[in-house]
Amino acid sequence: MKTLKRIIENNDTKRGRIFDLAIQSLIILSLVTFSIETLPDLSESTRRWLRYIEIATVGIFTIEYILRIIVADRKLGFIFSFYGLVDLLSILPFYIASGVDLRSVRVFRLLRLFRALKIVRYNKAIRRFHRALLIAREELILYLLVMLMLLYFAAVGIYYCEHEAQPKEFASVFHSLWWAVATLSTVGYGDVYPVTTGGRIFTFVMLLIGLGVISVPAGIIASAFSKAREMDD
Amino acid sequence: MKTLKRIIENNDTKRGRIFDLAIQSLIILSLVTFSIETLPDLSESTRRWLRYIEIATVGIFTIEYILRIIVADRKLGFIFSFYGLVDLLSILPFYIASGVDLRSVRVFRLLRLFRALKIVRYNKAIRRFHRALLIAREELILYLLVMLMLLYFAAVGIYYCEHEAQPKEFASVFHSLWWAVATLSTVGYGDVYPVTTGGRIFTFVMLLIGLGVISVPAGIIASAFSKAREMDD
Amino acid sequence: MKTLKRIIENNDTKRGRIFDLAIQSLIILSLVTFSIETLPDLSESTRRWLRYIEIATVGIFTIEYILRIIVADRKLGFIFSFYGLVDLLSILPFYIASGVDLRSVRVFRLLRLFRALKIVRYNKAIRRFHRALLIAREELILYLLVMLMLLYFAAVGIYYCEHEAQPKEFASVFHSLWWAVATLSTVGYGDVYPVTTGGRIFTFVMLLIGLGVISVPAGIIASAFSKAREMDD
Amino acid sequence: MKTLKRIIENNDTKRGRIFDLAIQSLIILSLVTFSIETLPDLSESTRRWLRYIEIATVGIFTIEYILRIIVADRKLGFIFSFYGLVDLLSILPFYIASGVDLRSVRVFRLLRLFRALKIVRYNKAIRRFHRALLIAREELILYLLVMLMLLYFAAVGIYYCEHEAQPKEFASVFHSLWWAVATLSTVGYGDVYPVTTGGRIFTFVMLLIGLGVISVPAGIIASAFSKAREMDD
Repeated sequence: MKTLKRIIENNDTKRGRIFDLAIQSLIILSLVTFSIETLPDLSESTRRWLRYIEIATVGIFTIEYILRIIVADRKLGFIFSFYGLVDLLSILPFYIASGVDLRSVRVFRLLRLFRALKIVRYNKAIRRFHRALLIAREELILYLLVMLMLLYFAAVGIYYCEHEAQPKEFASVFHSLWWAVATLSTVGYGDVYPVTTGGRIFTFVMLLIGLGVISVPAGIIASAFSKAREMDD
Repeated sequence: MKTLKRIIENNDTKRGRIFDLAIQSLIILSLVTFSIETLPDLSESTRRWLRYIEIATVGIFTIEYILRIIVADRKLGFIFSFYGLVDLLSILPFYIASGVDLRSVRVFRLLRLFRALKIVRYNKAIRRFHRALLIAREELILYLLVMLMLLYFAAVGIYYCEHEAQPKEFASVFHSLWWAVATLSTVGYGDVYPVTTGGRIFTFVMLLIGLGVISVPAGIIASAFSKAREMDD
Repeated sequence: MKTLKRIIENNDTKRGRIFDLAIQSLIILSLVTFSIETLPDLSESTRRWLRYIEIATVGIFTIEYILRIIVADRKLGFIFSFYGLVDLLSILPFYIASGVDLRSVRVFRLLRLFRALKIVRYNKAIRRFHRALLIAREELILYLLVMLMLLYFAAVGIYYCEHEAQPKEFASVFHSLWWAVATLSTVGYGDVYPVTTGGRIFTFVMLLIGLGVISVPAGIIASAFSKAREMDD
Repeated sequence: MKTLKRIIENNDTKRGRIFDLAIQSLIILSLVTFSIETLPDLSESTRRWLRYIEIATVGIFTIEYILRIIVADRKLGFIFSFYGLVDLLSILPFYIASGVDLRSVRVFRLLRLFRALKIVRYNKAIRRFHRALLIAREELILYLLVMLMLLYFAAVGIYYCEHEAQPKEFASVFHSLWWAVATLSTVGYGDVYPVTTGGRIFTFVMLLIGLGVISVPAGIIASAFSKAREMDD
């Protein structure tokens, strides 16, 4: 029992590492098969194979889930922990025969991969990430608020500049918001863009501000990391 | 009177916080209805409802504005303060029956949301932002000047490279400026782009310089933040 | 004579500042008229006016240039200095009636604007910029070399992935270089993009590397700025 | 023999620098001819000339390779070193008359250019790069993992939002991954983009997270560089 607990919960033994690696590989396999399932024009035999793999992985995940409950010191604590809920979420949809298509829930198996990071040598890096986030939390929230206001302001501005010239692309403030998101993030798909002189000048001003604003988080994070690293020493 | 003042101006009491939250919610509500109003093909009844909400919010904002004047120690000081003017600006257009469409002025209610940030725990972050801006002010202005020159130079250069091949897209230096803005900000809508070999080589050189230049503010801000954080300790 | 020298070369007197401001305004005016000249469909009278302004500005610039030579302590030193050459370059094309269209040389008047930065309070910021550049010079050159290699490597790779599927867009390594520039700078015009699965996977890998590489100068500059600021204190 | 060794392996003598420069020029020449070869519609005589240049460069590279083995203290050590393998790789394809088209291997001659960096004054910068990479390694790997998860999550999300509206562009999770790569890297080619309201809101949320995430490496690198620079002093 104690050996089993050690294999499942830790990875400081060889068998523990093998167990972890096997589960991680299964998760990635199940994500790959999930992705393949979405491909159009799959042959009947491929579909059947994907189904078999899904049944097998869910079976193993179920056994793993039950084992994890058994070896846990505080069983309820594990069930309602983050990982406990994620583990449950990744097998439950399979057992519930509902009208709703729950296949998409499988994507949350992704979250199980985070367990891969419990390796000791990453602990320090994770802790530093965490500390940097804590240090910069207020700044990042402030930044987010200013960014959201800027986006809304840009959307309203471009709406008044371009609405008449392009009544379809800039049909409302909501449509303009899409332009604001695509532009201030510098993605620039090119599906909507200003064509009037006024709209282009407005875009220019917004980008001058926006590019300055977009470089702020890099600055905040860099400074928070330096601080977190110092506290580390 | 003193209690009223405390409720309206501070948020260190429970009623103060409720008052603030109510006003903030109303501002967001009024921004949402403003956005909905721009949607095409609204039914008559929806328009009527939006109108009712607008009347109600302006009514409450007016009462709030008057109360703020009443409780202010220096009444004129408040009226001509930043927030005083913004508060006025967000109700005034409603009362002025002018020929010009003043609905767009409502977007300035956005500025009222900044009041939400007076919560104590953000004070430190705001102060740090402010101090970082002060530290980096000269560098940022210099940067802006260099950026504007680079934009203009890029526009003139691409005009001479592409004008003959694409006389419509690069019709003048002003048209080329639009390309320069979209390119050096890395938005790249794809409505105008060079097609000649000369224009592409010029774009390449401009981007090599431009990408270096664009990463400068992140560097300036990061270093200013580190400094501001140090002064904080 | 001494007063004249002071007015022209310094801006610590009121008349010196007025002289500087007047020249700066004239430069901007001449850049604006230069841009307007490129507009298509200008009326005859507008063209005439633009010509008059050009004659006037060149006249004043010529007088200024001669004055600057006269007041200079080392006349040859001024003529062959950076600003001396730029000043000459901005008036010379006007006087040379050559077959080649030299109007584009006027864009170099842009460089004269740098004189605007000699104001004392920017001296410190410029010096810090300069020092940060010196500190980070080797890293930035190294970075540029690696970037150029990455661009070339990306171009060759995408050429082999996409040449068959899109023989026109990816006609040669040189055509592919254009794609590499537009992609790794994250501009992404959308005139050329991979369509094969191989090309997309290659793009994905290149972007993973490229985004990391693109964030490097921000890091270098931030760290150089912090250092430069320290040395300042 | 000793002189030859010094010329080939070092560049602290004049002849050593000339030898290095000559080889570097040849590498660049061979990369240029390789690029020119991919141009369509080359005349027969151009092709012949390119072939001659290739034979000459490979000949010289072969002699250089043999000389490098001869002067090496540990011959096997050189052959299996990074540069030894790259040197071999850049001449071998020429001698192997195989059915497969090995011309593309020539791009690896690019790697030989790194030798150009052994100049003393870059040693310090390279060492600092290296140290910064070591300092930030764990963070960068963690970052890469989170980025990959985010990309996958974004792909699955947009697949469910857009699959019905654009069954061709978002045909499967793999197709959606292409969108996720182009969007979160902010390249935004514009070949695929969301059109449904749900898809656009999802894109908005993903970009808000993604832009924050993308600015993280700049922060990590900046802080690592500052640290590396400190250790330098």
